[in-house]
Amino acid sequence: MRKVFVVGVGMTRIGRHFDKDLKSLFAEAALRAIDDARGASPQALVVGNMLSSSLYQQDNLGALLADYIGLRGVGALKVEAACGSGGFAVAMGYTLVAAGLYDVVLVGGVEKMSDYPTPTVSAALAQAADAEYEVVYGASFPALNALAMRLYMESYGASREEMAAWPVRMHEYAYQNPYAQLRFRITLDDVLKAPVVADPITLLDSAPIGDGAAALVLASEDVARKLSDAPVEIAGVGLGSDSVDVSTRFDILDPLSVRKAAEQAYRRAGVEPKDIEIAEVHDAFTITGLLSLEGLGLAPRGEAAKLVAEGAFAKGDRPEVNLSGGLKARGHPVGATGVYQVAEIALQMRGEFPGVKASSPEVGLAQTTGGVLASTSVIILRR
Amino acid sequence: MRKVFVVGVGMTRIGRHFDKDLKSLFAEAALRAIDDARGASPQALVVGNMLSSSLYQQDNLGALLADYIGLRGVGALKVEAACGSGGFAVAMGYTLVAAGLYDVVLVGGVEKMSDYPTPTVSAALAQAADAEYEVVYGASFPALNALAMRLYMESYGASREEMAAWPVRMHEYAYQNPYAQLRFRITLDDVLKAPVVADPITLLDSAPIGDGAAALVLASEDVARKLSDAPVEIAGVGLGSDSVDVSTRFDILDPLSVRKAAEQAYRRAGVEPKDIEIAEVHDAFTITGLLSLEGLGLAPRGEAAKLVAEGAFAKGDRPEVNLSGGLKARGHPVGATGVYQVAEIALQMRGEFPGVKASSPEVGLAQTTGGVLASTSVIILRR
Repeated sequence: MRKVFVVGVGMTRIGRHFDKDLKSLFAEAALRAIDDARGASPQALVVGNMLSSSLYQQDNLGALLADYIGLRGVGALKVEAACGSGGFAVAMGYTLVAAGLYDVVLVGGVEKMSDYPTPTVSAALAQAADAEYEVVYGASFPALNALAMRLYMESYGASREEMAAWPVRMHEYAYQNPYAQLRFRITLDDVLKAPVVADPITLLDSAPIGDGAAALVLASEDVARKLSDAPVEIAGVGLGSDSVDVSTRFDILDPLSVRKAAEQAYRRAGVEPKDIEIAEVHDAFTITGLLSLEGLGLAPRGEAAKLVAEGAFAKGDRPEVNLSGGLKARGHPVGATGVYQVAEIALQMRGEFPGVKASSPEVGLAQTTGGVLASTSVIILRR
Repeated sequence: MRKVFVVGVGMTRIGRHFDKDLKSLFAEAALRAIDDARGASPQALVVGNMLSSSLYQQDNLGALLADYIGLRGVGALKVEAACGSGGFAVAMGYTLVAAGLYDVVLVGGVEKMSDYPTPTVSAALAQAADAEYEVVYGASFPALNALAMRLYMESYGASREEMAAWPVRMHEYAYQNPYAQLRFRITLDDVLKAPVVADPITLLDSAPIGDGAAALVLASEDVARKLSDAPVEIAGVGLGSDSVDVSTRFDILDPLSVRKAAEQAYRRAGVEPKDIEIAEVHDAFTITGLLSLEGLGLAPRGEAAKLVAEGAFAKGDRPEVNLSGGLKARGHPVGATGVYQVAEIALQMRGEFPGVKASSPEVGLAQTTGGVLASTSVIILRR
């Protein structure tokens, strides 16, 4: 297996880009990543995207986007794993280089969500759940995550106030991240008094709907040195799954897909949870972020909420988690999120992240998931 | 790069399976492939599928299908490249093993198309074209391919009768293939007198709508010997693209995506077009098959129609092409087609194909494409 490096990074600000379509949003991020990699010429494109088919009646997205940015002819495909699509796209781009098929691969994630009314977007997002066993009964994503949050609080005696510490911190970080969607501070009280979306989840426990695109240029070792002064190695990748329908989980509070993906990624990178200095984890809802920390082995089971409320995982701790503001406040353009995470960690390792800066990390981790923790990728980065 | 082998093959008959849903159709093929690989335990699943999102409101298909067949926990994702999804799924599964991430990977392709009326399915298939530049003007797939067919006939002086030789042959082969959808013979006259779908394309120039699933177990060299007495090597993989919208092609009769994918696959496998003894090529329409033969370098430009009419590429010639009956008559459950092709070639190399048998080939090729030859994968197999 060949070593693979991130040599170029590009992102768009996340928000409501009514003036840009899927293609132009993607192009903005992709061309920045190519510029950042000294004008590299990608030989293939892997795109992470969830909603182009259901919201825009557009498939064949890989070829469409490759041509749009001037890469006509290169191998191009779309990867779909619901809200985890971006992480899986990074994993596949990594694999294409690691296997030696290509020396330079562009990985992009793009999602355009704000052109439609919220009920339409919510229905499209619900396609990440089981159409026959969940969605047909009206179980939306907030409803399914509310079940997990309620169970977490009951099982571990976590208080509503402890749970609310997470979104407060995410908004503080996003406030300082120029790419973030929700750049305002909130208090514990704001979270508790926000409109209830699905009890006990309030509006401020939930990631917003937003448009965004992120892109990476990945390269093999030889080429990486030519394209970057500060290449960041992708040291390990892991993929895991769980039942899509939550009702048949072995244990709703044991994030199987995260554990499986993390085990593989740690083993392949030759590191352990204690070695991780910075992480971006998937917090589409407060409960998702907490369960992710536990599945990754960064917090003991049942203790993430309490630890976060006590200040763990914040700037200055180890690991420093979601300095971007997380899905919660940086934003969650679903198929792009996993690409944003890797881009953010790479920029932190280069000392160039424009928001809250990490403490010079050498080993980092990005974890993205689709559905209610059903499809997870874990990517370990090393400076 | 590690060597990768096909060690298990499973297919369902293609047709109108009103009694089976997407999951059960997939399971039938996947469990057969696993049985064929002596009960192998796949560590990951790559699914090729185009229409689950638009027709069944179901994303997160990788995790859903992995769980359904008892593989809960394994890394799972969906690959989408329109009607070329299946070929790209094989390519990604190959890459996961070649890069050393997994030793045993299940690749599946599944499509359920016959539950809806034809206009609904046609609209969903049109998502492989450019939504903003083509579909909005009513340019369906038959219409776009009709432009190419008309241009081919005008440019090269190919007669309508020469063009019609292809579907006649495909039906002859499918008649003998128990997995095929259209198991009846037709004459040249039948093709010419069939209802016109989009002039000059008639109903019998077009692949049918049908349901089907195919699956492969891929394994690394060490493991392959344990799982199969007759492993078939995936010797080379190539991926290519072209503009999705046909109006901006450099040359509509030069299948750029096929040429690009083929060049890579031949180079990586260390073979040339003249070494190919058997091939399955993408013939969603008669014109697609002919242009594919030319893009693959198996026929000189502008001569495929004449050569086919004269008997080239038939059983006994070299290469023997589409002995399955092709998309045209074996059937084209879109996201599954590329997986069927590889399964068919592997069975031919094992001497176990249940239809028209090849002449003991050692080197074979499968080519699948999405859109009007916009997203192509080429996979070279070696016994």
